[in-house]
Amino acid sequence: MSQALDIAVVGATGSVGEALVQILEELQFPVATLHLLASMESAGSSVMFAGKKVRVREVDSFDFAQVKLAFFAAGAAVSRTFASKAREAGCSVIDLSGGLEEALSIVPEANPEALDGLKLPVVVSSPSSGAIALAVALAPLRGVLDIERIQVMACLAVSSQGREAVNELARQTAELLNARPLEPRFFDRQVAFNLLAQVGATDEQGHGTLERRLVSESRVLLGLPELKISVSCVQVPVFFGDSFSVSVQSRTPVDVQAVKLALDGAASVERVENDDYPTPVGDAVGQDVVYVGRVRQGIDADHQLDLWLTTDNVRKGAALNAVQLAQLLIKKMA
Amino acid sequence: MSQALDIAVVGATGSVGEALVQILEELQFPVATLHLLASMESAGSSVMFAGKKVRVREVDSFDFAQVKLAFFAAGAAVSRTFASKAREAGCSVIDLSGGLEEALSIVPEANPEALDGLKLPVVVSSPSSGAIALAVALAPLRGVLDIERIQVMACLAVSSQGREAVNELARQTAELLNARPLEPRFFDRQVAFNLLAQVGATDEQGHGTLERRLVSESRVLLGLPELKISVSCVQVPVFFGDSFSVSVQSRTPVDVQAVKLALDGAASVERVENDDYPTPVGDAVGQDVVYVGRVRQGIDADHQLDLWLTTDNVRKGAALNAVQLAQLLIKKMA
Repeated sequence: MSQALDIAVVGATGSVGEALVQILEELQFPVATLHLLASMESAGSSVMFAGKKVRVREVDSFDFAQVKLAFFAAGAAVSRTFASKAREAGCSVIDLSGGLEEALSIVPEANPEALDGLKLPVVVSSPSSGAIALAVALAPLRGVLDIERIQVMACLAVSSQGREAVNELARQTAELLNARPLEPRFFDRQVAFNLLAQVGATDEQGHGTLERRLVSESRVLLGLPELKISVSCVQVPVFFGDSFSVSVQSRTPVDVQAVKLALDGAASVERVENDDYPTPVGDAVGQDVVYVGRVRQGIDADHQLDLWLTTDNVRKGAALNAVQLAQLLIKKMA
Repeated sequence: MSQALDIAVVGATGSVGEALVQILEELQFPVATLHLLASMESAGSSVMFAGKKVRVREVDSFDFAQVKLAFFAAGAAVSRTFASKAREAGCSVIDLSGGLEEALSIVPEANPEALDGLKLPVVVSSPSSGAIALAVALAPLRGVLDIERIQVMACLAVSSQGREAVNELARQTAELLNARPLEPRFFDRQVAFNLLAQVGATDEQGHGTLERRLVSESRVLLGLPELKISVSCVQVPVFFGDSFSVSVQSRTPVDVQAVKLALDGAASVERVENDDYPTPVGDAVGQDVVYVGRVRQGIDADHQLDLWLTTDNVRKGAALNAVQLAQLLIKKMA
């Protein structure tokens, strides 16, 4: 049993922050004192942890020297402002915001060895939901495929954008079902019963920030710096659960049976046979694994593997991976 | 002005059949007498055409020698039973069911010349919504790309499966919003706020019938019999409007500016610049064009073009294409 640690959760009132606190408790993470932090607007409320109410305080006035480990789940701007201060105070940081480009991305199932070379205190990144899903599903396949190129269509749940986006999908849906005029608020247009082919801002070449992030994170996680990868992100009218249609080009012919065996041997993968298929609602949501289904060769390409992945974007796609990463980190601290 | 023809619409009471009748009227198709036909259960009702009520009669007892042209929009089984009888009676057939494998697929914007070699009466196929969207968007690019491979994720609206599927999405959504228990009827599971990664039956290799159809139709329409193409179909909780995330691998580097110009010159394409993007609801639905957006090179592949297409699956994706095909056909009859 590891020694209990004083830790902080920044962004404790957001949906990922809430899931973090819940998973720390579920996994009996060795917490001595838990400090919950948020921006000024959200500070003052309380969150339950291990049967006690913990008050949420302002991150601005927190002294990070009080803790050995902090999770940052309050967005890129907050991470950029406070993560380096935390580290200077001797606190290791696990960032969930994607805002710290210099922080190494780690998924325990894919590149746990990346921690070995780092000196405490560290600043590491728990990557985007898509990169986690790809890493969990594809890392076990590195032994049976010679991966050259990956093509991903990411179908993102509205909860990836936080609680306001969840409320907006519910509100828009209710307005439409009641035949009332729709006035979009959180999204700039109708998201209910619709698909939005762009998530966040795009650059001059037309690629989204999240799309580029998924590319660079996947290369690191899979240890394939030369990997060619293309991503299109689409916002779908789903509350929880991200899904990914994935095609992998291999340099050698794909042995589907070997792929299935490798997936079956992976602890964080639940493979669904082709007489069925996994869905976000009903399978992935609330679960701690990446569901993999529709495992097949390309229709006319024996060097291609097609897959469908779905995962809980708040748990395995965010909070759970961060806590699993923290579990690796505390071994290093011991 | 062409001579007016006696024509038949089989499956007149379905959503595509209804759209066919409406579009025949909108485009002032030269109809002398319109015969509306359906299965026994749907016969007896009436449909408005050109200001008059037209009674729907049973297809079983219809003599196809009365008409020169028949649209078949009543499913694969009906086409297989009656299309060859119609042709033997001297009636040309435009099949919308996908059930006649020997029938040549035609999209007027892509392969109108395919009609030249055929002798009247003909049996031709108006292909699936995905193949139509791909053909309309990619045919104009054959001059600026050397297309080697296409990767498609097709996000299909529930209306692709008819009126019952539309009602089921509405019903499931209402049940969920009212926190009532969900009992799936038309679909085998929850489709509201969910994604179903399989549409229809799959074969032993794991590919769906519709996925294989889209592949073979696209090769014919684009005149590229050797084209490598992979398709994944997903049922999305959208009522109307099919969308497609498409990656095209070219044998030569992609000139994005030339691609945009070629798309802008195509009559049935509406291109949306990258500061915006097209959506099924709000753009495509009710329109007669294929919307193309997010035109960009692959993130790290200058031989790749990424696109997002969206189109009205009932109009351009089905009924409108069939009527445009009929317009070509009557020139041949004149």
